[in-house]
Amino acid sequence: MIDDNVVFIGNKPIMNYVLAVNTQFSGGVKEVVVKARGKAISRAVDVVEIVRNRFITEAKLKDITIGTEEITTKEGTLLKLSSIEIILEK
Amino acid sequence: MIDDNVVFIGNKPIMNYVLAVNTQFSGGVKEVVVKARGKAISRAVDVVEIVRNRFITEAKLKDITIGTEEITTKEGTLLKLSSIEIILEK
Repeated sequence: MIDDNVVFIGNKPIMNYVLAVNTQFSGGVKEVVVKARGKAISRAVDVVEIVRNRFITEAKLKDITIGTEEITTKEGTLLKLSSIEIILEK
Repeated sequence: MIDDNVVFIGNKPIMNYVLAVNTQFSGGVKEVVVKARGKAISRAVDVVEIVRNRFITEAKLKDITIGTEEITTKEGTLLKLSSIEIILEK
């Protein structure tokens, strides 16, 4: 999987990410991976649902995986964060 | 699937839901379905990750599905909310 196919969900307005996914598909890729951690997980599901219900209705959910990532903060403490990876396929 | 196997994630402290899932498994069920809508989706992933990493390490992720639910508010407006359903299997 090349990085170009990945859309990482952060704190920007949700339609920014919807547009990013749509742009990937318009560019000709067959799969887009939507990734998120922590509280952004809900937003990742929103993005995928908006894309496939409103914009690219032929897109299918290929796979959904969840996991736990360990992140070291600037202060040096270890943080465990849930993560999600949703693969959309056209 | 009987309703007893379902843990619906809301706004209570996260460990309440972890305990609810653990209790289901201790009661002898083979599958527990963790459901959430909207912002609680991130918390549902947290609950599942805590259960399977910390408490019931033999539990496996059987299936993860996402969708969109339409909810009518008290004021009568129609709201679209993302949802998740995670099936844990022991």
